[in-house]
Amino acid sequence: MDILVTGGSGFIGQRVVVTLLERGTVTIHGVSTADIDNLIVVDVAPPADPFPDDPRVRFVQADFTLPDTFTPLITPKVGLVFHLGAAVSGECEQDFDLGMQVNLWSTHRLLEACRHRAEQPRLVFTSSVAAYGGELPDVIGDDTPLTPQTSYGTQKGIGELLISDYSRKGFIDGRCLRLPTVIVRPGRPNKAASSFASAVIREPLQGEEYICPVGYDTAMYVLSPRRTVEALVHAADLPVAEWGTNRSVCLPGITVTVSELVDALREIAGEAITDRIRFQPDRFIEQIVHGWPARFDPERALNMGFQADNSIHEIIHAFIEDELQETEDGVQRL
Amino acid sequence: MDILVTGGSGFIGQRVVVTLLERGTVTIHGVSTADIDNLIVVDVAPPADPFPDDPRVRFVQADFTLPDTFTPLITPKVGLVFHLGAAVSGECEQDFDLGMQVNLWSTHRLLEACRHRAEQPRLVFTSSVAAYGGELPDVIGDDTPLTPQTSYGTQKGIGELLISDYSRKGFIDGRCLRLPTVIVRPGRPNKAASSFASAVIREPLQGEEYICPVGYDTAMYVLSPRRTVEALVHAADLPVAEWGTNRSVCLPGITVTVSELVDALREIAGEAITDRIRFQPDRFIEQIVHGWPARFDPERALNMGFQADNSIHEIIHAFIEDELQETEDGVQRL
Repeated sequence: MDILVTGGSGFIGQRVVVTLLERGTVTIHGVSTADIDNLIVVDVAPPADPFPDDPRVRFVQADFTLPDTFTPLITPKVGLVFHLGAAVSGECEQDFDLGMQVNLWSTHRLLEACRHRAEQPRLVFTSSVAAYGGELPDVIGDDTPLTPQTSYGTQKGIGELLISDYSRKGFIDGRCLRLPTVIVRPGRPNKAASSFASAVIREPLQGEEYICPVGYDTAMYVLSPRRTVEALVHAADLPVAEWGTNRSVCLPGITVTVSELVDALREIAGEAITDRIRFQPDRFIEQIVHGWPARFDPERALNMGFQADNSIHEIIHAFIEDELQETEDGVQRL
Repeated sequence: MDILVTGGSGFIGQRVVVTLLERGTVTIHGVSTADIDNLIVVDVAPPADPFPDDPRVRFVQADFTLPDTFTPLITPKVGLVFHLGAAVSGECEQDFDLGMQVNLWSTHRLLEACRHRAEQPRLVFTSSVAAYGGELPDVIGDDTPLTPQTSYGTQKGIGELLISDYSRKGFIDGRCLRLPTVIVRPGRPNKAASSFASAVIREPLQGEEYICPVGYDTAMYVLSPRRTVEALVHAADLPVAEWGTNRSVCLPGITVTVSELVDALREIAGEAITDRIRFQPDRFIEQIVHGWPARFDPERALNMGFQADNSIHEIIHAFIEDELQETEDGVQRL
């Protein structure tokens, strides 16, 4: 079987590729497995770190907002698609048309390319808890409606509705995961409104000052990259019957405040590190972030076998292990 | 001010046009009024009954699935749009691409035409309780999520999300109404899966035999054409602040079973009329209809001043008054 990964040069995409290569197989109907023959990665730019030197990997540099990108890529051999490619929340808020192109029309074109195949491929889509918004209950449950208050959240919500209907019609076998804020992302701050949640840990650990654009008491619902990748692969593995009439699930995460993040970082790395953090609220970022809910009861996802991290400490330790290079004397580069 | 009505040749569209002409004005910000200068009606076909002979009415016969239909129609003078045009549920289930073209892409093109105006027009959109589906609570509340199980419901749900975001961005001032099943529609049975709900009253009253494709105990949530038109105009009248962060509302209706419909018809018109009804379940229709919820708690809509009918008897009497011609001796044509 071939697998296609959109947005595969991204941080999560790269990890999905590596995880799939290591595993070497895909689960079929929850009972048998098929070997992964080819892993086709499509993205507008090559990855920051090169993909593993593996004959199964083929990188296609392509702008999937162009009309004909997907059709030749979705060959009859492609049995599974991870659709991770997206414009991030801040970008979508600042450039409405870009967000619609990348997140909505491209998703629709991908679904159409899948639909016109003889056999329906499985498709795993990264939605987001940013699709919740407006007047929300104190705790988000599986029965909370999507009333997004950002264009990004709107586009993710529409993607879910399309994937649900394409699945019901038998055009694809879709599975949508509403991701918590994924921390700690490596690299540099980006235009995602949630960028601060990683940066407030990452930048000080990498020796940088960081000006945090949201207040101490800002609460977030977070998931580590490790658990995110596990969830994406698990979503693909689950038998179709587990999804029933609802192709979307909100993933389990943990709720942390910026204050708790900073406290945990101080306990792990020391006060000299957390002294690098300054606070200077940015109204544009705060307005987006405060519209996102932070407390959830993800019962359905837990019943389906998805897992949250155990603690914020575990998340920070995982970042240090996975992303920070060790120096010659065995100490982390911090 | 000019008003545009899409789907204006349809049954509800015609009544909206007549109601607006009679009223002559549009409410602005809930406090002042503006005269209606022109009422532009766009539809693929002319109406069954001609529009009133009124210099304000201009009928544009146009296929709004074509890319450039809306742009020239949404002139700077258009301050209010009623977007009623749609492919019906049964059609959308049988012809997926038709539904997507008419209900989704055309709605998006209309929104784009509105967006590129200097001043944001108000826009009233007819969504549907068919946007609910799947595993639902016994009673649908304002907090019940849209998990549609038909393509029609999916397209309506996506329309709501788009209109909400276009409104939040200030591109339009949108208001979405989830309509109950509107009964009693005049004319002939159509491809709407809900067609039976009108036909079971209308056909016997017009002297026709009727084969009902769903069972006696099938429950529906219904609203009369009179109340539907009132609701559409009321939705346009409401000050924008009443909508808050949520541009969608589920309208109040009444819950009736087919059995209750037939009983009421018997009480009003006699057994000779109801003897014209036969039952022969159609699995395609039943599968769609039984996925629609029938019991609602439309608290928000009631607080916003939307109103249900008082009884099924009132609905049947209104149909007889509004749609059946009187004969010379003053007796209805039944």
